[in-house]
Amino acid sequence: MADQSVWLNGFLRPSGHAAINPADRGFTLGDGLFETLRIADGTPRHLALHLARLCHGAAELGIAVPLDNAQFQTAISTLITANSLPEAVLRITLTRGTGPRGLLPPADASPTLLITTAPFTSPAPEITAVICQTTRRNEFSPLSRIKSLNYLDSIIARQEAATRGAEDAILLNSKGHVTEASAANLFILKNGNWLTPPVEDGALPGILRGRLLARNLVREAQLTPMDLFTASCFCLGNTLSLRTVTALDGNKLPTDPPATEILRTVLESPKT
Amino acid sequence: MADQSVWLNGFLRPSGHAAINPADRGFTLGDGLFETLRIADGTPRHLALHLARLCHGAAELGIAVPLDNAQFQTAISTLITANSLPEAVLRITLTRGTGPRGLLPPADASPTLLITTAPFTSPAPEITAVICQTTRRNEFSPLSRIKSLNYLDSIIARQEAATRGAEDAILLNSKGHVTEASAANLFILKNGNWLTPPVEDGALPGILRGRLLARNLVREAQLTPMDLFTASCFCLGNTLSLRTVTALDGNKLPTDPPATEILRTVLESPKT
Repeated sequence: MADQSVWLNGFLRPSGHAAINPADRGFTLGDGLFETLRIADGTPRHLALHLARLCHGAAELGIAVPLDNAQFQTAISTLITANSLPEAVLRITLTRGTGPRGLLPPADASPTLLITTAPFTSPAPEITAVICQTTRRNEFSPLSRIKSLNYLDSIIARQEAATRGAEDAILLNSKGHVTEASAANLFILKNGNWLTPPVEDGALPGILRGRLLARNLVREAQLTPMDLFTASCFCLGNTLSLRTVTALDGNKLPTDPPATEILRTVLESPKT
Repeated sequence: MADQSVWLNGFLRPSGHAAINPADRGFTLGDGLFETLRIADGTPRHLALHLARLCHGAAELGIAVPLDNAQFQTAISTLITANSLPEAVLRITLTRGTGPRGLLPPADASPTLLITTAPFTSPAPEITAVICQTTRRNEFSPLSRIKSLNYLDSIIARQEAATRGAEDAILLNSKGHVTEASAANLFILKNGNWLTPPVEDGALPGILRGRLLARNLVREAQLTPMDLFTASCFCLGNTLSLRTVTALDGNKLPTDPPATEILRTVLESPKT
């Protein structure tokens, strides 16, 4: 893997020779965004949806997006070919670029755009989780609705899960409503309906989540921890995986493989 | 300024030759911390207090601090001498270091430590502010109590202030209590007493704030926006400045220069 390339600001470089300026506000202040995509058969899945979310987040933060969709497609194809990775995970990182000391972005900021690949390993279909006790998501912040670089709350949640012998943690919001896992939306089956927390409660508008909502296979509903414990099935899903939660806070949960399969079919589909 | 040096992982380098690895989790996930110090007469002010806060935050996140206090002192002295900056702002940035894709930090993470300087320009003694409407601080997150790299909420607040014609924004928490400005604690004078919001409400434990509390010149009190509008004086303070808020949401506020001077004397004092 030592010879893997990355795409940085218009140029392919061996990863060992790509450098981020220490004054990049992505590094100094977390001032940026990212997207994680699945590459299948050499093609990025749902690229238009990911780029739409990236552009929405960039507009929210006032960061210029330096490429249009066709240019993104070309950059990504070049990188995938260079790295000979038909099956991979692709990450797009967009930051404000460098700036002097201070919070207010410089008027002439020139964004940093980095595209990297990593091997795709199919995640296990089952996962254990805990309800996070150390932190919560902030539904009052626009950051809860964009995929920003400010990921420490999720890291803290994942560390807590590991400490408690589980694989992921479910974050509540300030009101105690359920929002999402550390890097996946959540879906519960209740009375035959798949439900997922609304964006207003602090759930990131995930790509798989949006595709399931658009197909009317899932609908939004405010959820409490009790809803998770009493669901007939509980899944975590993102653009890379759909996983059944088999235990929550050490309590074994029921599963519903046929109902889950309906969601998985959408995950695996290249259709928008 | 082109020949300014930075201290990166044990070595002084011209800033143009210092490079952060694109896989550094400080860059990809905001997984790190920082401190901002004032250098006066070639000496870092309150270094022990800043390092104590850095070490506390690093322990909270499980990041190893690669230097002891004496080694920090040596690194800082070397950098100040190299940059010939007896009056300066110094920033210490500590990140988890590089890691593969994924939230859980690698067990063998090797932290990145960057120390940089910037010119110190004495801030204007007065400032205008607004009450932030676009985002809030998350008092449920341990991040509200450590100086992490996740600074986007503060950036959004500062952008809102600029849009509304003001210089800073006051952030509320999820309950609507007052917490702090985008990069400064707040102090209000009420019935002859200086008050500042408690850490439990989402105020960062600032160094100037802590020094004022230790001297019993300020005490903690839960505050609402109305308290700011009705105070007999309202100041913002951090390790670099103490500024009187002269207008809030466009409303002119009273000032109390003699009472403010008492706080300023502590700001300017090299004593802990």
